Amino acid sequence: MRYSAAMTDDTLNGEDSIIQEFLAPLAAGYPGAFGLKDDCAVIAPPAGSDLVVKTDPIVAGVHFLPNAEPDDIAWRALAVNVSDLAGKGATPIAYVMALSLPEAPKRTWMAKFAAGLAEAQRAFGCHLIGGDTDRAPGSVTVTITAFGTVPAGTLVRRGTARAGDQIFVTGTLGDAALGLAVLQQSPLDIGRLGFGAADALGMMKRFLRPQPRLALGPLLRAHASAAMDLSDGLAKDCGRMCLASGVGARLFLAALPLSAAMRKAIARDEAWQKTAVSGGDDYEILAAVPQDKAAAFLSDAAKLDFPVTRIGEMIGGHGVRIDRPDGSELILDRTGWDHF
Amino acid sequence: MRYSAAMTDDTLNGEDSIIQEFLAPLAAGYPGAFGLKDDCAVIAPPAGSDLVVKTDPIVAGVHFLPNAEPDDIAWRALAVNVSDLAGKGATPIAYVMALSLPEAPKRTWMAKFAAGLAEAQRAFGCHLIGGDTDRAPGSVTVTITAFGTVPAGTLVRRGTARAGDQIFVTGTLGDAALGLAVLQQSPLDIGRLGFGAADALGMMKRFLRPQPRLALGPLLRAHASAAMDLSDGLAKDCGRMCLASGVGARLFLAALPLSAAMRKAIARDEAWQKTAVSGGDDYEILAAVPQDKAAAFLSDAAKLDFPVTRIGEMIGGHGVRIDRPDGSELILDRTGWDHF
Repeated sequence: MRYSAAMTDDTLNGEDSIIQEFLAPLAAGYPGAFGLKDDCAVIAPPAGSDLVVKTDPIVAGVHFLPNAEPDDIAWRALAVNVSDLAGKGATPIAYVMALSLPEAPKRTWMAKFAAGLAEAQRAFGCHLIGGDTDRAPGSVTVTITAFGTVPAGTLVRRGTARAGDQIFVTGTLGDAALGLAVLQQSPLDIGRLGFGAADALGMMKRFLRPQPRLALGPLLRAHASAAMDLSDGLAKDCGRMCLASGVGARLFLAALPLSAAMRKAIARDEAWQKTAVSGGDDYEILAAVPQDKAAAFLSDAAKLDFPVTRIGEMIGGHGVRIDRPDGSELILDRTGWDHF
Repeated sequence: MRYSAAMTDDTLNGEDSIIQEFLAPLAAGYPGAFGLKDDCAVIAPPAGSDLVVKTDPIVAGVHFLPNAEPDDIAWRALAVNVSDLAGKGATPIAYVMALSLPEAPKRTWMAKFAAGLAEAQRAFGCHLIGGDTDRAPGSVTVTITAFGTVPAGTLVRRGTARAGDQIFVTGTLGDAALGLAVLQQSPLDIGRLGFGAADALGMMKRFLRPQPRLALGPLLRAHASAAMDLSDGLAKDCGRMCLASGVGARLFLAALPLSAAMRKAIARDEAWQKTAVSGGDDYEILAAVPQDKAAAFLSDAAKLDFPVTRIGEMIGGHGVRIDRPDGSELILDRTGWDHF
């Protein structure tokens, strides 16, 4: 029932050798990983902390481009999960990975993939502690389950925003969707977007290397009533927070934080404005902060190396309303991504 | 970059509705699952316990037949992970699941899948606490990460067997591989296997519904020097235990526990004997027990509702030798499954 493998010289033959040569080094320093030589891993969370868990797979052709570089794939696979931890105020400690490949990987591919994972786990402060490597027909799929900790009882929930809360977002919006559009252009014509090569590179990097906003964690735990990361677009994800919280949201289009490149793109074609509102893959954090804590939140946020911007407020009712500067409502033909 | 969906009447439209209608009921009773309404789950392991983690995906056409029933797929997805926990002496508490489907599921499919999960988690004593549902080209893939607990420091390792240890195995060997052979026969000719319809059904069930040997956990923790579950065949997995432990193993072919159906198949065609040794998907437990604890282990095991059988001993050197009754060595053309 499983597939036998045709091997070539530089093809890796054997799950055990892939694990020991390329993946075991990523487990070094975490005792409960047992060097990836056992069937299970052990996590012993520090006393007084809760363990926070997230699993989110990425699939070639769905969540990343089929021709993506293996180090970018690896980074993304870990970053999208760590971003969810960041949105809950958690600190990453470890992850397990199920790697599914349609054919036995080349040595160069596997080395670059492992290097991307190494870079990501160093950046996010966690270790690989277990997993599985499989050959399966279909697309390259990386399913990471990430673990983080919060002081017991301090996880920042999604469904606890209240009417009157101020709404904040980290970073800038829509860049990743814009970067994806650049990556998908063929032939490449960035002039059409109104910006230059450096802008294009910056936007592509925003898509290829999501940066989980882990530094916001302590601020979320101290000040936020609700928070979550943005993966399916601001409008859709904010709608989810509203639905879970039983409130509505009013966002101000003019307040949305935009990169210089996005501003140029919008100046050339206003349609990009909707990308900032509904484009996916931002991996920024959306936070609701009670009015009496907003000043302290912003003051603490000023010390971070990314912007934190007030973009609206929670209101009674339900749904997300986005106001243009003239007070009219921005109507979206789609609010974000849904997989079905 | 993601795929839009073509919907029909009884097709489920929307990840959120799939989660809330079919999956959220599986999270009921576990506070840290938040009803699957948040981005992450929280696990608070009891004080004095270690959290044990395992992730192992199953893919249509690789780990289960493409025409498998959805409830059997769900059972298998959880059982293969829980079996790993069982092999470490751990008690399951929770799991997260990434479900990847090539097209939006029908309501009937999803209901049956959820029913299979419900049945499995009831049998194994754990809850769904989070996950992700995606549409991705390729095959149905279910990636479960399972969590269990052991009293702190009592995880039973793979690499700690010693020369002189007695080797035990639960249940009977090769049945699942035999059941898979029956399921793959077309046209069905079970007479050729030397057994009847009831035998065939029993073997098919052994493949379709693996039964993790959780009841062995306390015995492993009390008596075993090393243990692991068997998923890739006795010879290969025993070889892994030997390699990790720096010992060799001598197994006695005549001692291997075989079901009545397997005995009939072997009587008709001796080649099935090798299936008992190297066929995958047993999900039985292999345990090494020091000689001075073997009697107590067997005495405790007599109270279980599955057999526990001594099949050999750990010896100096390396590798797995399988002795025929006449003292000659059984030579295998392949020792078990490898995915690459």
